Amino acid sequence: MSGDVLTYPMRPIGFVRSPYGDTSEIPKGPGAEHHAEGTLELRPELEPGLQDIEGFSHLFVLWVFDRAGGCDLTANVPLDPEAPHGVFASRSPRRPNPIGLSVVELLGREGARLRVRGVDMLDGTPVLDIKPYLSSVPPEKLRRGWVAEAEAKRGGVRS
Amino acid sequence: MSGDVLTYPMRPIGFVRSPYGDTSEIPKGPGAEHHAEGTLELRPELEPGLQDIEGFSHLFVLWVFDRAGGCDLTANVPLDPEAPHGVFASRSPRRPNPIGLSVVELLGREGARLRVRGVDMLDGTPVLDIKPYLSSVPPEKLRRGWVAEAEAKRGGVRS
Repeated sequence: MSGDVLTYPMRPIGFVRSPYGDTSEIPKGPGAEHHAEGTLELRPELEPGLQDIEGFSHLFVLWVFDRAGGCDLTANVPLDPEAPHGVFASRSPRRPNPIGLSVVELLGREGARLRVRGVDMLDGTPVLDIKPYLSSVPPEKLRRGWVAEAEAKRGGVRS
Repeated sequence: MSGDVLTYPMRPIGFVRSPYGDTSEIPKGPGAEHHAEGTLELRPELEPGLQDIEGFSHLFVLWVFDRAGGCDLTANVPLDPEAPHGVFASRSPRRPNPIGLSVVELLGREGARLRVRGVDMLDGTPVLDIKPYLSSVPPEKLRRGWVAEAEAKRGGVRS
């Protein structure tokens, strides 16, 4: 099934404005919290697609790791540097398809611009999609695998 | 900013096996619940990327609405047929970039195949990425805009 797989071209709907100019500035690893404010600037002609978005407190943002070249199927990550983990069991940027997913809090809208809190993207990051965050997995049903183990081992706390 | 925007080609990492052969079979609208079981079949060479995924109870799946042509910036949806809503304030398949996002429960793994519960994709849907679900927005902090209003109006209950 790997030989004749189609590719799907994705065109940015806009770009992230964030305080981060370099990946070294983005909080990572144990206890990393993302409270930074930023703006999602959509292409002006897409503004009608934001109708009624103000009613949602949180949004999913799908975006492109446009400055992460290549892909590693397993990698060591800052939270657990000793053991490698599979790319699909981590948020590593070096993925087969370089798509990032963030949950942000919607603070307000001016036209085609959304002010949000919780950005963990670089300034200028291309945005592919925005979706309403509708429901959560109850905490008592959530298992977080090696992430929970690594946090416990390091005494880290994560929101 | 709309003239010279790059496109990013995305290549499926695998495909969904689901009980749904046609969109009419997928539960939609008020009270829709997704308990269907299915399989995410990754390309065999990507199996190392699944290392340690078994420890996570829930996964994000990013996939392609490969049978939804075109895009509507506003649309009427089954939950609230009277009022149109912006595409970024809904899960409509007719999006600028036809990417779907689902949260599934991981039941087990055999090699490059993940058995999951909660599929709402058609059989044969291309998968772009899989990520661990790490944390939830607390229910008391979540506002669900027109979705909550439409559910209340119709007396629907949604998990």
